[in-house]
Amino acid sequence: MSHPRLTENERHTALVELSGWALTPGREAIRRVFTFRNFNEAFGFMTRAALVAEKLNHHPEWSNVYKTVDVTLATHDADGLTELDVKLARSMDKIAASMGV
Amino acid sequence: MSHPRLTENERHTALVELSGWALTPGREAIRRVFTFRNFNEAFGFMTRAALVAEKLNHHPEWSNVYKTVDVTLATHDADGLTELDVKLARSMDKIAASMGV
Repeated sequence: MSHPRLTENERHTALVELSGWALTPGREAIRRVFTFRNFNEAFGFMTRAALVAEKLNHHPEWSNVYKTVDVTLATHDADGLTELDVKLARSMDKIAASMGV
Repeated sequence: MSHPRLTENERHTALVELSGWALTPGREAIRRVFTFRNFNEAFGFMTRAALVAEKLNHHPEWSNVYKTVDVTLATHDADGLTELDVKLARSMDKIAASMGV
């Protein structure tokens, strides 16, 4: 099942809901930096998010330095943002919120 | 226990042993890009490496895009490379080798 690229209106609606995320300059992608208390929590977040990503078969571009996790989401097949990115962003927000972030 | 910065000779000796790693231009750090078969293996590698990092209390700077893991190691306290970086690099190499990489 392929996912159509979001329209500008749909992108706008999604970004209002995903308040911690912002469009990446120069690229149709969204980004959020999560900051935890330490590496244990940051990597715990990544592990939970990785399970969701694998289930969705949709994977983040992300980096980790100690207690921070910098996430960029985009759908390569659609050359932009799709519902998959919104789903994964929403899941990551829920996981982080459950950890007090 | 603080770890002294490696001398130039020690750095050279370490890099001969750590054949997949290279010095990062413009910074006293080492870098290796690991490429696996898929996200499951890449994140499996990261999980095993994270346990080693936490045990050493020495953490990588790393990013992951699908099946690749890009790792940079340095010791911030020493403002350069120490034995901790060599230990972590060696462990990562062993984990990757055990996965056929």
